[in-house]
Amino acid sequence: MPEFLQLLPPQEALARWLSAFPHRQPSSENIESIHSLGRIIAAHITAPHPLPAFPRSTVDGYAVRAADSYGASESLPAYFTVIGEVLMGCQPEIPLGPAQAALIHTGGMLPEGADAVVMVEYTQAARENEIEVTRAVAPLENILRVGEDVDAGQVVIPAGRRLRPAEIGGLMAFGIQTVPVLCQPRIAVLSTGDEVVPPAVEPCPGQVRDINSYSLSALIEEWGAVPVRYGIIPDRAEALKSAVAAALADCDALVITAGSSASSRDITAQVIQQAGAPGVLVHGVNVRPGKPTILGVCGEKPAIGLPGNPVSALVIAWLFVPAMIAALQGMAQAPQKDHVTARLSINVASLAGREDWIPVTLHQAAGSLLAEPVFFKSNLIFNLAGADGLMLIPADANGLAAGERIQVYRLSRAP
Amino acid sequence: MPEFLQLLPPQEALARWLSAFPHRQPSSENIESIHSLGRIIAAHITAPHPLPAFPRSTVDGYAVRAADSYGASESLPAYFTVIGEVLMGCQPEIPLGPAQAALIHTGGMLPEGADAVVMVEYTQAARENEIEVTRAVAPLENILRVGEDVDAGQVVIPAGRRLRPAEIGGLMAFGIQTVPVLCQPRIAVLSTGDEVVPPAVEPCPGQVRDINSYSLSALIEEWGAVPVRYGIIPDRAEALKSAVAAALADCDALVITAGSSASSRDITAQVIQQAGAPGVLVHGVNVRPGKPTILGVCGEKPAIGLPGNPVSALVIAWLFVPAMIAALQGMAQAPQKDHVTARLSINVASLAGREDWIPVTLHQAAGSLLAEPVFFKSNLIFNLAGADGLMLIPADANGLAAGERIQVYRLSRAP
Repeated sequence: MPEFLQLLPPQEALARWLSAFPHRQPSSENIESIHSLGRIIAAHITAPHPLPAFPRSTVDGYAVRAADSYGASESLPAYFTVIGEVLMGCQPEIPLGPAQAALIHTGGMLPEGADAVVMVEYTQAARENEIEVTRAVAPLENILRVGEDVDAGQVVIPAGRRLRPAEIGGLMAFGIQTVPVLCQPRIAVLSTGDEVVPPAVEPCPGQVRDINSYSLSALIEEWGAVPVRYGIIPDRAEALKSAVAAALADCDALVITAGSSASSRDITAQVIQQAGAPGVLVHGVNVRPGKPTILGVCGEKPAIGLPGNPVSALVIAWLFVPAMIAALQGMAQAPQKDHVTARLSINVASLAGREDWIPVTLHQAAGSLLAEPVFFKSNLIFNLAGADGLMLIPADANGLAAGERIQVYRLSRAP
Repeated sequence: MPEFLQLLPPQEALARWLSAFPHRQPSSENIESIHSLGRIIAAHITAPHPLPAFPRSTVDGYAVRAADSYGASESLPAYFTVIGEVLMGCQPEIPLGPAQAALIHTGGMLPEGADAVVMVEYTQAARENEIEVTRAVAPLENILRVGEDVDAGQVVIPAGRRLRPAEIGGLMAFGIQTVPVLCQPRIAVLSTGDEVVPPAVEPCPGQVRDINSYSLSALIEEWGAVPVRYGIIPDRAEALKSAVAAALADCDALVITAGSSASSRDITAQVIQQAGAPGVLVHGVNVRPGKPTILGVCGEKPAIGLPGNPVSALVIAWLFVPAMIAALQGMAQAPQKDHVTARLSINVASLAGREDWIPVTLHQAAGSLLAEPVFFKSNLIFNLAGADGLMLIPADANGLAAGERIQVYRLSRAP
């Protein structure tokens, strides 16, 4: 299985990968609604009762029978007897009769017999307990009917929807205190490389600390899955094979970063190939950084082999892993990558036929956003840490010119 | 302090508010680096040693003294004696002499005496332990110098930077296991309204469940602060006053949702006015939904009085609270609101002079994104829960035409 026999464009590689494992929804669990932010609902939530549950005023004014106001005008007002005030949070006790009105506040419950509310602006006091109404109201005017938001039994949050602040509020509107959500996919993270040591270890000359396990875990967390770190595996096929077997038994997907040497990448490809059918699907993607990327499926579970280089690993994970996490949760669409529009500060060359992702910093200049590419001879983690985002040079371009409007994608979901 | 004497445009209201309280950085705490995703670094992080810490090869090939390759070509190769292989993760023991080469892998440590690496593609085996080099290399070619990423003592993560996956990786590159981060601002959330009951309570006719405490807490959480719920306060000035005093003593800012009635809003304004100088700064914003918004500062702590309506409350909180949270952490700029570009499906009218925010759903249609406004007579939570985002009709427009390209802003930070 030699590397780079056929370099696929990233979008084609992604599509091939996503179509090769089942988009099965993982199991679900019940959790407290107040802790469900960002989780995905596992079953339709239906309204246990209509909302609003009672007819409510949307204005401050007087509840009336609309018919009694017909024909009212500034010059010929209609007169109403005020029989009381609807207190907030209370059911009004007296039903409204003809030519009667009740003072009501926004959100107050409409008294029996009333079918509209006259805004206070179109009323004035006449005698004691009497008002003039200077503008007619139609039935249902300035009120919310029972069930106007949702009817009893209606699906209010469909299965598969991610819970946002508005949905959390909606659950509370019905007093739904616990909610069934999809379990978050567990993504195994394996680092390999004989030169790699855990961050807590002081490296000897020739050794480097493990960056990828942690940057990739953070990325996985941001996209709504649970990273499970399996540590650093030596560059021996047998060692990686047994670590991968353990990870496949416990997790829903594998993310492996190869060591930086070619032999380490070969071992990664070989182990993915042998860990379960269909094995390696893509070996080499036409993108920079990240050409040596491996995409595979091992016994229905997706696996990605990332380059060992920390910048390549993170950029490629950002390109491929969010879509994988979404697919594992049965979502039809990959989540959107947030971006801003900016002007490019200088000419940037690139190789036609290859997608290039270049870190940029963003600056305000003359009222618009300027994107300044971060150039680097090699992929060093602090070049990425210092960047505000990534710009894309599409495969069909030979580069982009200074002043062009480009999209700059945020590499992180943090605010 | 009557409502709506002067309706301020939202941006002007926000600027007035942000300039009226100190953008003091809150206290800091040390936390584990692996749990620091999304937090803000409290002090400059400097490099304890250079990175890379040793000269590394960026390719697979042979480490050489560059000068020995000068003049080499396909027709006239240079010959090198191969004295060994640099093992990954090990310091090479033999220094390189003239016309000597050592096999080296990407990421391997350069032997003493070597100053460049010849790519394996430009070499071929000659006799046993001898290679031909068919292309000259310059000094430093295909290597990473010591400190090429960062020098010892260099600031690698400046104070005030939010930690993203790349920064977490960068901390690990130095073995920095704990990190000083700003404490997250504590934001008090108070609901008021005699008609409001806790979600766990079965409401009587005339009562509604508390939505706002929970939707607003979720929003506050998404923007990196800690919501502290003070429950539902009755519509009496004294009750709200003592709850506000307790909240100000314990928290960095207040978010109060008024009940829906005018008297409840009056009480909110009155209590903010009296809770500390300068009190109410803005009372009424020229935006829909959310006109009755109150912005104030009580003894250096920002306070916002939101309309009781759950949709207005959430939209206004989304407009104002993220900038407040950022300011409380000493950030100069309000965080960006993520958006997508879409085409508007129908004509939408609006009142010139007022900013309108309208919930929309998004659909793919004929290869582009179509935004369909969600119209509603009144602001019902499930209209917002069902929407994919919000579109803006700017104050200077009388509406927008079908087919126009608009920005649709996401109301939530969840993926």
